[in-house]
Amino acid sequence: MPKSRDDLFESGANPLGNKDANALRSFIDRIESVQGEIDEFKADQKTIYDEASGAGFDKKAMRKIIAIRKKDRDEWKAEQDKVDAYLLALGLA
Amino acid sequence: MPKSRDDLFESGANPLGNKDANALRSFIDRIESVQGEIDEFKADQKTIYDEASGAGFDKKAMRKIIAIRKKDRDEWKAEQDKVDAYLLALGLA
Repeated sequence: MPKSRDDLFESGANPLGNKDANALRSFIDRIESVQGEIDEFKADQKTIYDEASGAGFDKKAMRKIIAIRKKDRDEWKAEQDKVDAYLLALGLA
Repeated sequence: MPKSRDDLFESGANPLGNKDANALRSFIDRIESVQGEIDEFKADQKTIYDEASGAGFDKKAMRKIIAIRKKDRDEWKAEQDKVDAYLLALGLA
């Protein structure tokens, strides 16, 4: 069994042992192809954010709203109540 | 002009000033809908990683390969040479 990278390269052995490089390549191609779709949708999101920004809405505030809507509503309210109490206790409210 | 959140809620004024809550809602709905597509593709990626893992390939190593393929090849090689030199210098190679 090769003990180092150099041994591996010199041995001429399949660095994947008994596994197939083409299978690996195919998995990686598929993952990259799906990533291409994701990247396109992300670009779409950016376009919508830019459009909203052009209409006078703040991107950062919108991101916060979207994060809040993802959370369970009761859980979020409980969190918020704690933050409000801490702000008040520290004279920041 | 309302000075605090309480003033704002009591005034009955539109908290967005002259901007339309429906426009804001529509932007947020569109962003969330695109996010739904992204989440589905991410689930597809997870399925492919699981399949690859079932075929004996290591997910972490695959993620590294994908990150490396995203980079400019020469830039990556230059980075790698530096890391190799530092490993050697520190007796870690």
